[in-house]
Amino acid sequence: MAQILDGKALSQTLRNEIGEKTAHLKQTRGIQPGLGLLLVGDNPASQVYVSSKAKACEELGFYSVIIRQPADTSEGAVLRQVQEWNADPRIHGILVQLPLPKHIDEHKVLLAVAPQKDVDGFHPENVGRLVAGLPCFAPCTPAGVMEILSRYNIETKGKHAVVVGRSNIVGKPMANLLYQKAPNANAIVTICHTAAPDLTVFTKQADILVAAVGVPEALKGADMKDGVVVIDVGINRIADPTAPKGTRLVGDVHFASASERASAITPVPGGVGPMTIAMLMQNTYRSAAGEVY
Amino acid sequence: MAQILDGKALSQTLRNEIGEKTAHLKQTRGIQPGLGLLLVGDNPASQVYVSSKAKACEELGFYSVIIRQPADTSEGAVLRQVQEWNADPRIHGILVQLPLPKHIDEHKVLLAVAPQKDVDGFHPENVGRLVAGLPCFAPCTPAGVMEILSRYNIETKGKHAVVVGRSNIVGKPMANLLYQKAPNANAIVTICHTAAPDLTVFTKQADILVAAVGVPEALKGADMKDGVVVIDVGINRIADPTAPKGTRLVGDVHFASASERASAITPVPGGVGPMTIAMLMQNTYRSAAGEVY
Repeated sequence: MAQILDGKALSQTLRNEIGEKTAHLKQTRGIQPGLGLLLVGDNPASQVYVSSKAKACEELGFYSVIIRQPADTSEGAVLRQVQEWNADPRIHGILVQLPLPKHIDEHKVLLAVAPQKDVDGFHPENVGRLVAGLPCFAPCTPAGVMEILSRYNIETKGKHAVVVGRSNIVGKPMANLLYQKAPNANAIVTICHTAAPDLTVFTKQADILVAAVGVPEALKGADMKDGVVVIDVGINRIADPTAPKGTRLVGDVHFASASERASAITPVPGGVGPMTIAMLMQNTYRSAAGEVY
Repeated sequence: MAQILDGKALSQTLRNEIGEKTAHLKQTRGIQPGLGLLLVGDNPASQVYVSSKAKACEELGFYSVIIRQPADTSEGAVLRQVQEWNADPRIHGILVQLPLPKHIDEHKVLLAVAPQKDVDGFHPENVGRLVAGLPCFAPCTPAGVMEILSRYNIETKGKHAVVVGRSNIVGKPMANLLYQKAPNANAIVTICHTAAPDLTVFTKQADILVAAVGVPEALKGADMKDGVVVIDVGINRIADPTAPKGTRLVGDVHFASASERASAITPVPGGVGPMTIAMLMQNTYRSAAGEVY
């Protein structure tokens, strides 16, 4: 049976560690990490995400502020809020909850966030630093995956890691983290995507398989080799008449069949998901402590 | 027999095109592209490179200036020169010839170059933009490879490109360019390196093989599959008693055996090498024309 990589438990461990470091930072240097959360419009999922992030801040003793702007806010108003936080010494991390309404240029907003406060790791300066192996804020989801691999002592050096998906938020930074000449990385990395005539040519080679496809249960056990470590980044809600609410959450991996092949696997929910907020807290702490810039 | 991908001829075509565009830019907008070349110390190879770059500028009608600083110059003096050019409207591109003497922090210098004038594409802001698929200056050698693939109509979409080497200058940007969802890219990309127990597991799968290993003739025909497109980024001088000077230039690929397997191959010299300077000129032109920032 595959070992379950328990992101929920691990994220709690991380949060405890960050909480302790935060208390120490306040005591010794009088610094309280601060996070600014900008929520535009009334997307229900975004509201849930922003609330959980604010709640995590509270638990860890961070300062946090949520600014809500209506769906028809102007790009200028969004940029002004970002610039205000760029200049605010209480704020060490700025998070603009995505997606933004269509009339607002997302790239323009992400470029406006000072790289030194870009705890989401989306600014090109941080992306470039990540690629070069320089100190940076790494995007939270792939950073959480690296943390899972490292804390579970999964060997990555010289292993073949196959990343399925090339989004800016997951696939690309994931690939760029895994090949770095660094402890807990140093893998041979293949990044594959929809242009492949047959994805399974690659997934079947993976020692470590990272699924970030955005399609429910797209990768099955038959697409994998025995002993693979499966990291499932997907979160999809599908219909399930047998479930109390008529729906349930699944990943991009077909869990039952993959578990029969894998040596270790992240579940959905309770795998990569909970790590994402923990890494956001970690990045905000590191910003406050001056560990990056 | 493998088709020879003639980088020398192609670079001449490119230079002609850039020369024409430059004449037009001067005539219509009164802008002459300008390149600042900073050479520290007296490394003979660096002197040759800087001279060829200045010569290319002259040929194309660019303004160029070479500043030479002694090997024992201070980091401050190097940074001051960079900052002077950052502020100089005649200069659209800044090139700090590498390597720098050991007492100077290379990263610090490269970070000091304004991203808008970083025609070498080494600043994290440009690296990050490249990864995100945003307008940027791409590093010249991988940009030259992309140009060869595109001008020779080599299909990349859905092909398996294997990049051997993970340097900041070649391997990493090469991999990040090849998987982009863009015309003349869109490949499945594997980036492999010294941590692989057996590199040939990967090289044998390549439809497109990019060798940037830094070891003379490291990859042989036997490491490749029939029909592969071979891009040899290496330039190594090896002893050859039969050559007039007792040495000759070879790539990272064993040309004779690889040619028997490949459908197309870049020679050394005359393949990727000449494209590098052409792409530097292209980047400088694009900076002057305001095509990037």
